[in-house]
Amino acid sequence: MRVSVRSMILKPRRLVSSFSRIFSTHSKIEMSNLEEAKKLAAYAAIDNHVQSGNVVGIGSGSTVVYAVERLAQRVQTEKLKISCVPTSFQARQLIIKHNLKLSDLDITPSLNVCIDGADEVDSNLNLIKGGGGCLLQEKIVASCAKQLIIIADFTKNSCKLGDQYKKGIPIEVVPTAYVPIKRKLESRFTGEIDLRMAINKAGPVVTDNGNFILDWKNFDQTLNWENVNQQLISIPGVLCTGLFVNMAKKAYYGMADGLVKVQE
Amino acid sequence: MRVSVRSMILKPRRLVSSFSRIFSTHSKIEMSNLEEAKKLAAYAAIDNHVQSGNVVGIGSGSTVVYAVERLAQRVQTEKLKISCVPTSFQARQLIIKHNLKLSDLDITPSLNVCIDGADEVDSNLNLIKGGGGCLLQEKIVASCAKQLIIIADFTKNSCKLGDQYKKGIPIEVVPTAYVPIKRKLESRFTGEIDLRMAINKAGPVVTDNGNFILDWKNFDQTLNWENVNQQLISIPGVLCTGLFVNMAKKAYYGMADGLVKVQE
Repeated sequence: MRVSVRSMILKPRRLVSSFSRIFSTHSKIEMSNLEEAKKLAAYAAIDNHVQSGNVVGIGSGSTVVYAVERLAQRVQTEKLKISCVPTSFQARQLIIKHNLKLSDLDITPSLNVCIDGADEVDSNLNLIKGGGGCLLQEKIVASCAKQLIIIADFTKNSCKLGDQYKKGIPIEVVPTAYVPIKRKLESRFTGEIDLRMAINKAGPVVTDNGNFILDWKNFDQTLNWENVNQQLISIPGVLCTGLFVNMAKKAYYGMADGLVKVQE
Repeated sequence: MRVSVRSMILKPRRLVSSFSRIFSTHSKIEMSNLEEAKKLAAYAAIDNHVQSGNVVGIGSGSTVVYAVERLAQRVQTEKLKISCVPTSFQARQLIIKHNLKLSDLDITPSLNVCIDGADEVDSNLNLIKGGGGCLLQEKIVASCAKQLIIIADFTKNSCKLGDQYKKGIPIEVVPTAYVPIKRKLESRFTGEIDLRMAINKAGPVVTDNGNFILDWKNFDQTLNWENVNQQLISIPGVLCTGLFVNMAKKAYYGMADGLVKVQE
């Protein structure tokens, strides 16, 4: 159980220089607080946890965009040699767009670090992930990395899962089995189970792996998440959950005041 | 833990009549011992466990062919009203071919019974399934049924898993993750882990759900299978295992001497 949260102003050499680069480059650009917070977290994590020769897992979501941007800068300026393993279609496109070396788990099955976002992080570094629907590939890649480092803005930093993130815990399921799985979940747990519907297509969201997502909302916040995760994956047809328990090593949060908070 | 095996000559009214029908219909056909054994088991299970109004899960494999044949006979002669939920493409085709009422887990998420084969059954009714590659859908459908009834010829009846079936325990995995999963399995367990290769296509077998299969051979036969199954499904990217633990209610074996043995 990790209970200590280290709230600090990060000022290692590289981080300070990266901050000065941010402000010099973007001083004239009006960024929203949230976007700036994401960028601060992403830059700090990339600067502290990636070095030449590394195989790096590239997460998914809006914060990871800044991580890949920073990686590309460092490859350019520091001649960093890295390989990148994507966790989604989006991550793959980001790697290609920034001309980074694309790898996969066949070529590099063991990663030094995986940098990814999260929808919510509790005080024990348990995560809800999968708001973007990429939970399965994200969990696979993270499980192949020596360290999973989370990058997020300050709104993702919670005491308990569900305190701030209200879209629920995603559960990826075999499409043909979503009805009985929904019923089983409803009979075993409190809360609501919703099939995630798409907006730009008729019917449900289909994941990059061709599956459906059930979102479990209004759950009991006092549950033992390790235990719950085991119960969930024991239901045949449940392929993955958005509960990442005992996986994250550290979380970087970009704060509203422009500082970075580190939780470990 | 189920340890008692009831070895008996099954002679309920319906079963005897089904046997007499087998022999009267097929007396001139030379059937192999094994095929006859499969048919005996399938007919006995269908006669003892299916009644009008039931939703029936239809397993996969060579023994299930006889079960569907017998179901169709009973629908014809007894005007049985049943719905059938397939566990595979093969099962679906059998249902359609025999003009049985096809259903699915959206329409009928709760089944009265699922009749399926197995590659091996141990003395505790633990199963290895998935030799035919349909383990995921088979496990889903079985988990939605009040009873899973196994039908098999006598060669599938073992004391310990691995005694007779040498093709290993199938593990269905996300294709992009098969290399790191193979490595993890090799580091955690004794035995060999082989990617199942196709014969009528280049490269690996792709399951009905679009996944790969790793076959775990020469495993330690004294393992606790419930525990092993939990360990396996906890590896991200493992979608299902061919270990069916605490699922089967009863197994019917057609024996070489023309009798049926029941294990429960």
